Amino acid sequence: MNDTIDYARYDRIRPIRWTGEALELLDQRKLPFTTEYVACTGSDEVAAAIHALVVRGAPAIGIAAAWGVVLAARDVDAADGIAAAALLAPAMQRLNAARPTAVNLAWALARMRTALEAAGDDWRERLASEAQAIADEDLAANRRMGELGASLIAPGSGVLTHCNTGSLATAGFGTALGVIRAGVAQGRVGRVYADETRPWNQGSRLTVWELQQDGIDATLIADAAASHLLRNGEVEWVVVGADRICANGDVANKIGTYQLAISARFHGKKFMVVAPSSTVDMATPSGDHIEIEERDPGELLGVGGNRTVAEGVQAWNPVFDVTPAALIDAIVTEQGIVEQPDEAKMRALFGAH
Amino acid sequence: MNDTIDYARYDRIRPIRWTGEALELLDQRKLPFTTEYVACTGSDEVAAAIHALVVRGAPAIGIAAAWGVVLAARDVDAADGIAAAALLAPAMQRLNAARPTAVNLAWALARMRTALEAAGDDWRERLASEAQAIADEDLAANRRMGELGASLIAPGSGVLTHCNTGSLATAGFGTALGVIRAGVAQGRVGRVYADETRPWNQGSRLTVWELQQDGIDATLIADAAASHLLRNGEVEWVVVGADRICANGDVANKIGTYQLAISARFHGKKFMVVAPSSTVDMATPSGDHIEIEERDPGELLGVGGNRTVAEGVQAWNPVFDVTPAALIDAIVTEQGIVEQPDEAKMRALFGAH
Repeated sequence: MNDTIDYARYDRIRPIRWTGEALELLDQRKLPFTTEYVACTGSDEVAAAIHALVVRGAPAIGIAAAWGVVLAARDVDAADGIAAAALLAPAMQRLNAARPTAVNLAWALARMRTALEAAGDDWRERLASEAQAIADEDLAANRRMGELGASLIAPGSGVLTHCNTGSLATAGFGTALGVIRAGVAQGRVGRVYADETRPWNQGSRLTVWELQQDGIDATLIADAAASHLLRNGEVEWVVVGADRICANGDVANKIGTYQLAISARFHGKKFMVVAPSSTVDMATPSGDHIEIEERDPGELLGVGGNRTVAEGVQAWNPVFDVTPAALIDAIVTEQGIVEQPDEAKMRALFGAH
Repeated sequence: MNDTIDYARYDRIRPIRWTGEALELLDQRKLPFTTEYVACTGSDEVAAAIHALVVRGAPAIGIAAAWGVVLAARDVDAADGIAAAALLAPAMQRLNAARPTAVNLAWALARMRTALEAAGDDWRERLASEAQAIADEDLAANRRMGELGASLIAPGSGVLTHCNTGSLATAGFGTALGVIRAGVAQGRVGRVYADETRPWNQGSRLTVWELQQDGIDATLIADAAASHLLRNGEVEWVVVGADRICANGDVANKIGTYQLAISARFHGKKFMVVAPSSTVDMATPSGDHIEIEERDPGELLGVGGNRTVAEGVQAWNPVFDVTPAALIDAIVTEQGIVEQPDEAKMRALFGAH
């Protein structure tokens, strides 16, 4: 086993580019067939892009929103950070409202506000450097999580992942997909399965494409085939990301995560959640307190703009679910691993969070 | 509660029509937007239609194959049924090979062979009347199963179903969907949820459309949203069909069935399997002995002919899975209900099967 990871080889995609003039977002609605960056020059454009899923993935949303504040600052004239913060509040509010479930969005905006309020007449520069720091720290955190998470996986294991938690969902390298990348690089992960992740197909459109760019073989399965796969003994770990981690270790993540956790437990397989500590929300006691975003039922009525369902059919489209802590074997963050999470263990690691 | 069911109102679709000259199959690949019957005038056309999923659903496949034998008989000149059976064997073999998992196909062909071997020079008429009997008995069995299954459901319950087990999958009325129809007619079923059933989208393309034709409201969900739904308390019963039921009560059915059974048990909800006794295969001791059909991975790489997955991506496409008897609360057939199935109870009801 080689514990040194060649990051240049295993991490080639960047979903967010700051040019100094504009925020360029890789349009994830058009992947895998079109690789096109959308240039945003105002914060409302960024908010709209977040809402429309041009950019997605909890960490990436936070980073994009931070740059959105930098763009909003161009329209504001203020003598210092406190004054600027007041003037920027409406734009930041609109950014915050673009997606309700991921805590990273609110977390990144809070960091920007704190930086702003500590700034003097250099507040514009402080905003830009804070946004860059959020992105840089995310990448560093992902690499650290990759190493920590991979250390739990025995050599030659099979893994199943859900949604897209890769470079596309972060500043780079990914959270759950970072663990898989690190595991592949170290020979710990011998088989990678990705499920489709309906209705938005993050697995089939994004994850298998992203892994392909880095030369990592992955096998796509239908969401409903996961239990059959887990029963067959090809997979030892289910590895997923998170949109919000509660004080008791409950995890909100992409719809379908909960079902995988139930099935992993039923089959005696392990379940790992990988997310930066910015995803931990110690102010939310448990999953019962999380607002679950429901998106347009139209997302279920077709694929890629092609309608597959009869007119007049109703659909229910919750896009997240809550996995109770009791079904989770390990929560991996850049600050460390919480095994068999509960409130005491969460407070021990994130108490001052 | 009204226990009388208005079958004319709740059963408007017929997927298989015998004209006397040709077998007309409603092309289920084109639903819900195009209602088009494919006319088959030879048995190899029927076999090809079964393989290509023009007609699908375990009972419907059996019925179509039976009519396929009637078509094959046109090319055969024989003095009696025994002689005809020998000459028809190759065509029947090709029909049998069109799909490997559903036992109804082999069962219907065995019935046709038995009828043939008992026939004299009236063997052509005997074949045709046997095919018609298979279809008629299927419809009657479905109505009986509907009443039996619905009797297990408390008034006002929510149900979740998988794949399509309706009129489209049978001679009419359906198996699991027949229970739901009967339950709706009697006020026992107050909410109907159907999952998409990737990769072929039988739920989103067929089930919700079929229910819509009969004026039954149904809500479509993603396959991966089932556990979130079960947790929310909206559903008391998961009701599914079967492609093969083993001597110990294990059930092979559409991929994803197993996952729903695990989740239903985890949430303390009930799990019902509905299938005609022709689906029971007492010669197969358990699910370990069932060949699971794997279809073209290409089915996972796009939807409705539109590619959604990058070139070069591998996929694994098992189309059935096995639900162990221990996760099943009731197996409903036209011969009766087996609750908490095991081999002894199965033998008591189907011993001479």
